Amino acid sequence: MTKARVVIEDLTPQVDCGRFPARRVLGEAVVVEADVFADGHDAVAAYVLYRHESEAQWHAMPMSFIGNDRWQGRLTAQMLGRYLFTVEAWVDHLESWRRGLAKKHAAAQDIEIDLQQGAALALAHAGRMAEPDARRLREWAKALADPVREREERALLAQSDELHALARRSPDPQLIERREPPLAIAIDRERARFSSWYEMFPRSAAARPGEHGTLADVEALLPYVASMGFDVLYLPPIHPIGEIERKGPNNRTGAAPDDPGSPWGIGGREGGHKAVHPRLGTLADFHRLLASAGALGIEVALDIAFQCAPDHPYVREHPEWFLKRPDGTVQYAENPPKKYQDIYPFWFECPAWQALWDELKSVFEFWIAQGVRIFRVDNPHTKPFAFWEWVIGEIHRAHPEVIFLAEAFTRPKVMYRLAKLGFSQSYNYFPWRNSKREIVDYFTELTSRPVCEFFRPNLWPNTPDILTEYLQFGGRPAFVTRLILAATLAGSYGIYGPAFELMDNRPRESGSEEYLDSEKYQVRAWNRDDPASLKDLITRVNRIRRENPALRSDATLTFHPLDNEALIAYSKTSGEDAVLVVANVDPHHAQTGWMDLDLAALGLPADVPYQVDDLLSGARFLWRGARNYVALDPWGTAAHVFRIRRKVRTERDFDYFL
Amino acid sequence: MTKARVVIEDLTPQVDCGRFPARRVLGEAVVVEADVFADGHDAVAAYVLYRHESEAQWHAMPMSFIGNDRWQGRLTAQMLGRYLFTVEAWVDHLESWRRGLAKKHAAAQDIEIDLQQGAALALAHAGRMAEPDARRLREWAKALADPVREREERALLAQSDELHALARRSPDPQLIERREPPLAIAIDRERARFSSWYEMFPRSAAARPGEHGTLADVEALLPYVASMGFDVLYLPPIHPIGEIERKGPNNRTGAAPDDPGSPWGIGGREGGHKAVHPRLGTLADFHRLLASAGALGIEVALDIAFQCAPDHPYVREHPEWFLKRPDGTVQYAENPPKKYQDIYPFWFECPAWQALWDELKSVFEFWIAQGVRIFRVDNPHTKPFAFWEWVIGEIHRAHPEVIFLAEAFTRPKVMYRLAKLGFSQSYNYFPWRNSKREIVDYFTELTSRPVCEFFRPNLWPNTPDILTEYLQFGGRPAFVTRLILAATLAGSYGIYGPAFELMDNRPRESGSEEYLDSEKYQVRAWNRDDPASLKDLITRVNRIRRENPALRSDATLTFHPLDNEALIAYSKTSGEDAVLVVANVDPHHAQTGWMDLDLAALGLPADVPYQVDDLLSGARFLWRGARNYVALDPWGTAAHVFRIRRKVRTERDFDYFL
Repeated sequence: MTKARVVIEDLTPQVDCGRFPARRVLGEAVVVEADVFADGHDAVAAYVLYRHESEAQWHAMPMSFIGNDRWQGRLTAQMLGRYLFTVEAWVDHLESWRRGLAKKHAAAQDIEIDLQQGAALALAHAGRMAEPDARRLREWAKALADPVREREERALLAQSDELHALARRSPDPQLIERREPPLAIAIDRERARFSSWYEMFPRSAAARPGEHGTLADVEALLPYVASMGFDVLYLPPIHPIGEIERKGPNNRTGAAPDDPGSPWGIGGREGGHKAVHPRLGTLADFHRLLASAGALGIEVALDIAFQCAPDHPYVREHPEWFLKRPDGTVQYAENPPKKYQDIYPFWFECPAWQALWDELKSVFEFWIAQGVRIFRVDNPHTKPFAFWEWVIGEIHRAHPEVIFLAEAFTRPKVMYRLAKLGFSQSYNYFPWRNSKREIVDYFTELTSRPVCEFFRPNLWPNTPDILTEYLQFGGRPAFVTRLILAATLAGSYGIYGPAFELMDNRPRESGSEEYLDSEKYQVRAWNRDDPASLKDLITRVNRIRRENPALRSDATLTFHPLDNEALIAYSKTSGEDAVLVVANVDPHHAQTGWMDLDLAALGLPADVPYQVDDLLSGARFLWRGARNYVALDPWGTAAHVFRIRRKVRTERDFDYFL
Repeated sequence: MTKARVVIEDLTPQVDCGRFPARRVLGEAVVVEADVFADGHDAVAAYVLYRHESEAQWHAMPMSFIGNDRWQGRLTAQMLGRYLFTVEAWVDHLESWRRGLAKKHAAAQDIEIDLQQGAALALAHAGRMAEPDARRLREWAKALADPVREREERALLAQSDELHALARRSPDPQLIERREPPLAIAIDRERARFSSWYEMFPRSAAARPGEHGTLADVEALLPYVASMGFDVLYLPPIHPIGEIERKGPNNRTGAAPDDPGSPWGIGGREGGHKAVHPRLGTLADFHRLLASAGALGIEVALDIAFQCAPDHPYVREHPEWFLKRPDGTVQYAENPPKKYQDIYPFWFECPAWQALWDELKSVFEFWIAQGVRIFRVDNPHTKPFAFWEWVIGEIHRAHPEVIFLAEAFTRPKVMYRLAKLGFSQSYNYFPWRNSKREIVDYFTELTSRPVCEFFRPNLWPNTPDILTEYLQFGGRPAFVTRLILAATLAGSYGIYGPAFELMDNRPRESGSEEYLDSEKYQVRAWNRDDPASLKDLITRVNRIRRENPALRSDATLTFHPLDNEALIAYSKTSGEDAVLVVANVDPHHAQTGWMDLDLAALGLPADVPYQVDDLLSGARFLWRGARNYVALDPWGTAAHVFRIRRKVRTERDFDYFL
């Protein structure tokens, strides 16, 4: 038997019974909860214990009762990396005694024996304490049991908050229950949760149409990117591109001599994953790009695609890292009946796997050494989960500030597993969630437990691989709405530009989501000064994101009922800041409807008027109560992004009102 | 690194990360599910492994893919007690190869190299198998790679279900992932889930009014209980009752010499927890009662209340089992400012706890030796959880057929903990859930995960301690409705009679839930032949329960939308059997409304008419589609209990239709 009669259940945050850490960001309060209770009527006490993995000592924070046997405590992470936490609790006999005594005394019952019981309990606590605290408790015990003192005085003394707080520091160790093993929380920097990405192909960055762009050209475009308010510039692979089986424009087989090929066909005569494509420039150019970007508040994210073109140096130098077919040739990538002869996958399970894994890790380390701290990982779902857990764990041990974005659009369980293994952010099904019902269902799943504990979505309305039907056929309103949804539904979002802001919506062929004349296979020229560009809207949206803390995280996302299936309403809050978005997801027709706002979710009382300021248009409305009318025209105002102003002054605010 | 690239997540049923077993009953199919997936496109295979704790060998059952990376298997428990189960899975290269080959062949691609790859895989499997199976796979491999054979023939041979099934029995051990440690399922007998209880005080069983009833009188009433269709007869404690501080009628202090006292004030001169009260009879009378009950299909459930009257022999013989106050007296039960001087709680944490716990266990064992297999445990929430886990575990090891009903009306977390620890059934908040919203919310919680995995509610409209306001003020309709709700919302229910069937609704005082002149403190005389008695209705309801498998479990409980807040509709199904209950929870007014039946939950197609037979009234209705009208009058038909007849014959059923 254990004397510890207290029970600790359902400790949260918890992912897969503690197999994986929950994820939070630096500075964010981590709310820890547990069911803590004992048999009978006895009082219990509960503490959160926590420490950074680099610390030896546990910190203790008292928990508070929040109802239905649930207790809550908070810890604020001060360092990046892993924290361990658990809950310790015990039956608190002294507290039970205090409560019982108060009730008996209030009922005018005899409490003489109770006072003696309390004195014995106080003495027991004293026996577990050092001087001078022990002496204070001994004196308390003596006073409680002293028949010379007035009963009233002793009843009051029994309730001393100060002495109870002192005694609570020395519970009977036999009564203590601790949840073992502790759980883990991974603390990332804030950009893991709140980031605005802009993807561009350096090959198309040249100032002069038709020329192959360079990293220097990208550097020249940084002010353009910065002016729109992005803080991550993501470049597709910048490495040498293979020539064997190189693809021509629009993914045609048989490239012409001057066709640049796909940046994901990595490796050639000029090097592999640690080299810069000669037509883009040099490592020195890359360093300059990083420095200039940093000066504008932009981080450069590199693409990590662990695969090789047939002429990648690895294929020659390490044939043992590639699976052979019975005819002795290297097994190229396949998804039967599709064949990708230009791509050799690594054989992650090969006998020489350890050397292979080490080499792949060194690719991250190489670019970290150049100053890169954000990686967009290509197709992580086609490499073993065990590899990702190992390599991200290794990188994070030395560099907890590194952010990994998983390019997985695969099945939900696979996406979630990658997030549990350590990916900081993930692509997801957002591109294909266009109707109200789809959006409500999907984002409810993403922001509910357990998913919200470990998975951070990064929303992309388009990518070089994904030009959705919605964008193909929705015209400008589709781009506007999808931008606003992406930027406000999740803390992280991104666009593939300039295709997005210039509203390129031509597919390679009907029914395809591939772009016509995709930059994946050729150089494109873009008129970034096109007056139709969405860049001003993007600039405004990114400013709204920066200025409203509510939009920096997804935990408070709440959908509000609205009686029109083409209109969607949702809000996020952070402290005093509350943002309400109302959008028309029908790009073709004006829509009107009545909302039933969840006022509690917005922190609004039911009976007080409040002002809503449309941060997009500048329009202001004075509302009162839950029921409000909205009208949205895709070619006029396609969406409202309201900041709720909770306090509206009334006559009572004048100091001469009374 | 592990070569096992497969992942097993979210294995169910699972309670508190495997800390506790899920509960099922004998003969019930146990559905085991898990997310099973690997990186990339490879096929995976998954098996449920299971064994009874008494078995050394695992049984293996293949799992099927049911969508979204979830796999499902079934095991049928053949024995009472604990089963262990887990899931084993692996990347199935042979299956991946088969699928790829089929697609390539369908696309008219060259498959020569693929056939050779398959032959190599088949040989690898052969190497892990015994003869003659190994030889069959070697021959298969040879044929696949044989260039003399027709390509078409080999493509067909590659798809052989029989050979694939053979090969699947010998996966590469290096690729196998197994979820460790296994989880547990506790298998109870069916009565743990489906039981109809009747509680009666033997003291009031005498044929002649005013006399103190005996066990022989109870025996004489067995036909009455059996005729109503109950299968459990629960008797409050039958032990000697203490005389010190004995309570008089209506819980008055200071009992008169002839007052019988409370049966829960256990122990006196005549003995304690292992003795029969002399006024009730002898152990031999009890044996006769058990035998007669058994002949009528009734089990007798005894009350186990681990507490003592001050004159219980334990108090004298084992003073070390009771906590002393500073003045040397025994600490009586308290819930400040209330004092229960007639009850001494055991000191479960006393230094001699081991002897105390063993003695309490022996109380169960004593009554098991007399033939009792069902115990209703009084106030388990005031004894340590560790005690219950230990004592129920010990009893179940020798007697897995024993059923424990927890009398805990306490906080939800406490009730659930007791169920996790081993209680087969539990009292719950049903008495106080009277409105539609309350019922829908509470029973949705009870029949959803995680609660439904371990907690089985037993619904009591009344108990000797609980005469709800709803019954006090609702008249006969309240009794009718609560009976039907109790009997159909849960597999187990019970009534405290004859107070229930005779509709005793007089409280001790206004605002109290105690009965006036409660049998807890005095002998009562009942007119069981009162023409107003609900016994015929009870008889019919219990027959409906027996005849409809749908009502034997709670897993399929589904509430159906109904546009009147006083009308509630819900259904349960089991195979072909589907029962739909519609009840008026307003005991004062007739109510009408429109239902929107969830036809899928009822197993009904949308476009076919179906018949609903009211098993209470015999009325029949022909319905079609989801939308149906109901009208219920509390003084006429207060509720429908429909059996859905899914098949209604049409002209097409005549053999000369075509």
